[in-house]
Amino acid sequence: MTLKSRIAEGRPLLGTFVKTPHHAVVEVLAHSSLDLLVLDAEHAPFDRRDLDVCILAARAAGMVVVVRPADGGHSAILNALDCGADGVLVPHVRTAGEARAVAQAAQFGPGGRGYAGSPRAAAYGGVAMAEHRAASAARTVVIAQLEDLEALDDLDAILAVEGIDAFFIGRADLTVALGCASMDDAPVVAAVTRICTAAVAARRPVGMFIARPGDTAQWVEQGATLFVLGSDHG
Amino acid sequence: MTLKSRIAEGRPLLGTFVKTPHHAVVEVLAHSSLDLLVLDAEHAPFDRRDLDVCILAARAAGMVVVVRPADGGHSAILNALDCGADGVLVPHVRTAGEARAVAQAAQFGPGGRGYAGSPRAAAYGGVAMAEHRAASAARTVVIAQLEDLEALDDLDAILAVEGIDAFFIGRADLTVALGCASMDDAPVVAAVTRICTAAVAARRPVGMFIARPGDTAQWVEQGATLFVLGSDHG
Amino acid sequence: MTLKSRIAEGRPLLGTFVKTPHHAVVEVLAHSSLDLLVLDAEHAPFDRRDLDVCILAARAAGMVVVVRPADGGHSAILNALDCGADGVLVPHVRTAGEARAVAQAAQFGPGGRGYAGSPRAAAYGGVAMAEHRAASAARTVVIAQLEDLEALDDLDAILAVEGIDAFFIGRADLTVALGCASMDDAPVVAAVTRICTAAVAARRPVGMFIARPGDTAQWVEQGATLFVLGSDHG
Amino acid sequence: MTLKSRIAEGRPLLGTFVKTPHHAVVEVLAHSSLDLLVLDAEHAPFDRRDLDVCILAARAAGMVVVVRPADGGHSAILNALDCGADGVLVPHVRTAGEARAVAQAAQFGPGGRGYAGSPRAAAYGGVAMAEHRAASAARTVVIAQLEDLEALDDLDAILAVEGIDAFFIGRADLTVALGCASMDDAPVVAAVTRICTAAVAARRPVGMFIARPGDTAQWVEQGATLFVLGSDHG
Amino acid sequence: MTLKSRIAEGRPLLGTFVKTPHHAVVEVLAHSSLDLLVLDAEHAPFDRRDLDVCILAARAAGMVVVVRPADGGHSAILNALDCGADGVLVPHVRTAGEARAVAQAAQFGPGGRGYAGSPRAAAYGGVAMAEHRAASAARTVVIAQLEDLEALDDLDAILAVEGIDAFFIGRADLTVALGCASMDDAPVVAAVTRICTAAVAARRPVGMFIARPGDTAQWVEQGATLFVLGSDHG
Amino acid sequence: MTLKSRIAEGRPLLGTFVKTPHHAVVEVLAHSSLDLLVLDAEHAPFDRRDLDVCILAARAAGMVVVVRPADGGHSAILNALDCGADGVLVPHVRTAGEARAVAQAAQFGPGGRGYAGSPRAAAYGGVAMAEHRAASAARTVVIAQLEDLEALDDLDAILAVEGIDAFFIGRADLTVALGCASMDDAPVVAAVTRICTAAVAARRPVGMFIARPGDTAQWVEQGATLFVLGSDHG
Ligand SMILES: [Mg+2]
Ligand SMILES: [Mg+2]
Ligand SMILES: [Mg+2]
Ligand SMILES: [Mg+2]
Ligand SMILES: [Mg+2]
Ligand SMILES: [Mg+2]
Repeated sequence: MTLKSRIAEGRPLLGTFVKTPHHAVVEVLAHSSLDLLVLDAEHAPFDRRDLDVCILAARAAGMVVVVRPADGGHSAILNALDCGADGVLVPHVRTAGEARAVAQAAQFGPGGRGYAGSPRAAAYGGVAMAEHRAASAARTVVIAQLEDLEALDDLDAILAVEGIDAFFIGRADLTVALGCASMDDAPVVAAVTRICTAAVAARRPVGMFIARPGDTAQWVEQGATLFVLGSDHG
Repeated sequence: MTLKSRIAEGRPLLGTFVKTPHHAVVEVLAHSSLDLLVLDAEHAPFDRRDLDVCILAARAAGMVVVVRPADGGHSAILNALDCGADGVLVPHVRTAGEARAVAQAAQFGPGGRGYAGSPRAAAYGGVAMAEHRAASAARTVVIAQLEDLEALDDLDAILAVEGIDAFFIGRADLTVALGCASMDDAPVVAAVTRICTAAVAARRPVGMFIARPGDTAQWVEQGATLFVLGSDHG
Repeated sequence: MTLKSRIAEGRPLLGTFVKTPHHAVVEVLAHSSLDLLVLDAEHAPFDRRDLDVCILAARAAGMVVVVRPADGGHSAILNALDCGADGVLVPHVRTAGEARAVAQAAQFGPGGRGYAGSPRAAAYGGVAMAEHRAASAARTVVIAQLEDLEALDDLDAILAVEGIDAFFIGRADLTVALGCASMDDAPVVAAVTRICTAAVAARRPVGMFIARPGDTAQWVEQGATLFVLGSDHG
Repeated sequence: MTLKSRIAEGRPLLGTFVKTPHHAVVEVLAHSSLDLLVLDAEHAPFDRRDLDVCILAARAAGMVVVVRPADGGHSAILNALDCGADGVLVPHVRTAGEARAVAQAAQFGPGGRGYAGSPRAAAYGGVAMAEHRAASAARTVVIAQLEDLEALDDLDAILAVEGIDAFFIGRADLTVALGCASMDDAPVVAAVTRICTAAVAARRPVGMFIARPGDTAQWVEQGATLFVLGSDHG
Repeated sequence: MTLKSRIAEGRPLLGTFVKTPHHAVVEVLAHSSLDLLVLDAEHAPFDRRDLDVCILAARAAGMVVVVRPADGGHSAILNALDCGADGVLVPHVRTAGEARAVAQAAQFGPGGRGYAGSPRAAAYGGVAMAEHRAASAARTVVIAQLEDLEALDDLDAILAVEGIDAFFIGRADLTVALGCASMDDAPVVAAVTRICTAAVAARRPVGMFIARPGDTAQWVEQGATLFVLGSDHG
Repeated sequence: MTLKSRIAEGRPLLGTFVKTPHHAVVEVLAHSSLDLLVLDAEHAPFDRRDLDVCILAARAAGMVVVVRPADGGHSAILNALDCGADGVLVPHVRTAGEARAVAQAAQFGPGGRGYAGSPRAAAYGGVAMAEHRAASAARTVVIAQLEDLEALDDLDAILAVEGIDAFFIGRADLTVALGCASMDDAPVVAAVTRICTAAVAARRPVGMFIARPGDTAQWVEQGATLFVLGSDHG
């Protein structure tokens, strides 16, 4: 069962960030009971080769792997998907327009992901175009990270964008954006709660980063289902 | 004789894509009778180091080498040329404006390629500014890849842009853009034919990717002269 | 004493460019009496891993290190700072708007640098958010490189932008922009002098690249205090 | 069914050498119908990281992978097996004593392979010692390469050594050793035939490198079952 | 205070193995309260570059770092020390002769470590020969790993070898050597106890690998002071 | 004209050590007037990949390149030559027997360098065995480094060994071996003089490391012709 299906069904999912750009970390974590790994190319110095090999390692172990690119540009999304990632977690989606652009960039079609039959995702030329397109559409997960004031302002419109499989609350940057000092400050909690509530109302899956395992309970109650707990750094 | 001259003369040229980011592939292919290699940094995970060393390998062997960057941004084009590539093949050029921007990015001058005397292309400081500028202008090849509906809409204007040495038809993405399932579908063939015809009329060199050696004949008839056949992946 | 303070005090500072993407060069140069090193990711093929390890090497040796990214995009600036660089030297700042964007990208806050507690700059999770933010604000240096005609046109506005610690004159590209053949041509000297004079008048630190040690005297007289002399290439 | 079993059963097996130290080559070849890949760390500049990632790639694709280390030293054999290779092809085994040493080095036990529960081969700590030892014994293939005059002199004793799964004739070095100019020279053919005959008589699997597919027929007749055809270099 | 002094004083010391060949792991662990890190180049695929950068990372953080080379050969020991490691942990020291060879290989002098003033350990040429030699002699730690039956047979002679700072019991390989299935089997415990007792009697520091923190108590009672607990793999 | 010929003719030759394992250093130095570069894999952490690419860089620039391997083992010599180096400089040759072993390891033939037609040195399969063997014999340079007391004891026998193109005096290790503190101490000067005199008498080329350009004069008088001056570290 794909990550895409499991997210859509609202199953509780737990992942972690991989911050060390080395495949051995992925291989070791793949022996855990985690549901997914997120390679953090935004805040850790992953090069393309590191993403490539870490994705290979995840696939070798049957572990789901998502890439958080440094930005939402087409080429970073294309590269992650061509290398065979299950999806992308795009930081700083601020508006419905940006959300649509991200969704488009992850799908083949006009203005979308460039097509090639040669990469790992297409079995190195081993599958036909129609097959590759169908498999990609069925599998590719797009998660939009909400972490700016603009995103709060445009929340309902963002949550209505098609082609986004889940929304991920960036609590650290939200804390910064709200002028707070800690994720536990009331304005941050209120904003996170508001996003969860709106997502539930819009029937869209929502999740967030958590620093400690025990932190999930509070947000499960608010309807969150997708959690990324800490990182390989501890 | 430079690639630039050979393209301009309309000589039939045959290259291949390099998809494995390792210089040994370049060195082995440099022993072939191919006219050029295209390092595919769009659909294969080349890092800058890989491009750097693969370009070195091509130069060591006297093989012409072009980089297809992940996008048409200034920094990717500058990096390829500073490392000593013979040119760039820029994907998804959609409008005459984009074509002009790409042409400008590959040339020194206002709004263009940033100048440095330190990289390999300038013999690591061994040539003076005037010499480096003249040599670069005489050698650098810019190929614009046409593969979107917008490019078809703006075709004549695009083909009229100065500073583009050749136009390359991205048949795979054109297939996707036209809603077709195969490069051999009639609408795709018609679009490719149309581009070739317009290019010939405009006296601009044109070429495309081909999957099998025998596929060239059909397009040579249509005036195409620049072909990239398959890749090192087979 | 931080580089930021020393620049602000107008102390004469001398650095060099690192063009070879290998930490040993940084380690060797760290034994010199230079005030700072500038890792040139614009004109040398540094990957993120190279920047990461070269910054590590500089910190191990107590050497100040600044990154010149390939462009002024948010992700390149964020990456350099997350890896622990003392600052960034952003090429091709053309307008006051671009200068403001660069300043913003280097600071946490709305529209600014994305926050993470996990990278080296935050002691791999070892410091709290408030501490990391304060330390970053106190330490991060932003240098805007002026090297285009547009920058000359918008000079006073650019020099008035807050959040830029110093301005760096890109004499090579200025030479190209002015249609000259050498940095010593009169129009280039005049333009450099003009920028120095305006910076001094605006009480903003200014500096430039120099090719030979003896070249500083002339520009110190014009008020320049920050010099980058040649590179490890010689 | 393991490579070890298939060799023991005398099934005809066809592999190729991988000479480019990059995992993409392994991934592409893994889509072929080859029975095994041999990573040539003797005559191609594989580092440990390259072996590590190439073995990972083979395992991800379910392809059998054997390493030819630069020499028969314990550490190179241990590293290949710890990384999860199916076996080793050890060059220049000259005497029965050397063959015994190689066999011992590939097996846990006194004087043998050092034990660790931490590497990939032991599922990164996921299997107990007894299980890892049993699995390794059941799976690890040791192939001794015969290519020196000394090996011809000690042939029957070498072929009687336990713990060697197959013998591989190094025809190039045998050609050099016999003072010939081509593998097709009569003395070389005679020596190869002699080794095959002796191996068949001793009921030990034997094989060799071949440059062209058609070359197998001649040696299948002589009892050879294990062939390595060319390389990814062509 | 150096590791060498602390070992000599019999202070209880706790380290861990680093198995992932990436400096970020070293940097993260350097924030722990561990006394030392052991880069395991025996059972993890560290290349020289990995050792070099991991040692750099340890030095940057003021963390003590020891390398376990793949074998006791001169070149691996020299490389670790030239790169600036605090010492080496040499596996499979079987006899007093081997122990003497290892001790010699780690010290400058006839038959010993080759001298160069150029590496990191000599401040890249920044210290004179006498100073480098004295500093190296005062700092370099040599730990001999005992894990074979031969070592048990030659135990007293091994423990009497000068130039070895501590002895490290390889309990996993000792388990294999004794034909046992677990480190907790009586013959293994007896052998470990015997080594500890003999080391204490000979007034030589002794230690071992432990899998769980609680395992130290038992062996501290037996006089062990140097422990390496698990690894970054968990 | 090959390095081998120039050495044989007794021409004065000047090289330098490359200590930074990055090809850019080789490329920059290739623009100098040096006669050769020596990649120092003994005292700098070169991996095989680094040697491979640095040799490629030297060949691209038409610069002569020699590798100093970490030791005189067959596999390190084979790797350097397969990658296309012009020769090897083998450290710590102590006896005539060792010198013969080194000479043998660098030549194809019984007990010598293993043959493969696949590496760069054989044009990736592009030359026939006879051609590759002849070219290698005509080009490969073997330099034996003398730097131990044993070498002084066996000096005349060592200098009589065939297949060594030149002898290189390791003055730093000789200083250590003689219990001196500086290369300028009288016993060291005497030993170096003695080696030069004996080499001249035996009509064998001899050379050494020098730290400053002016140091050559003294030793040219003693008959030395081959000098390696400092390194890229300064
Ligand atoms: Mg964020
Ligand atoms: Mg510039
Ligand atoms: Mg395309
Ligand atoms: Mg062991
Ligand atoms: Mg020496
Ligand atoms: Mg052989």
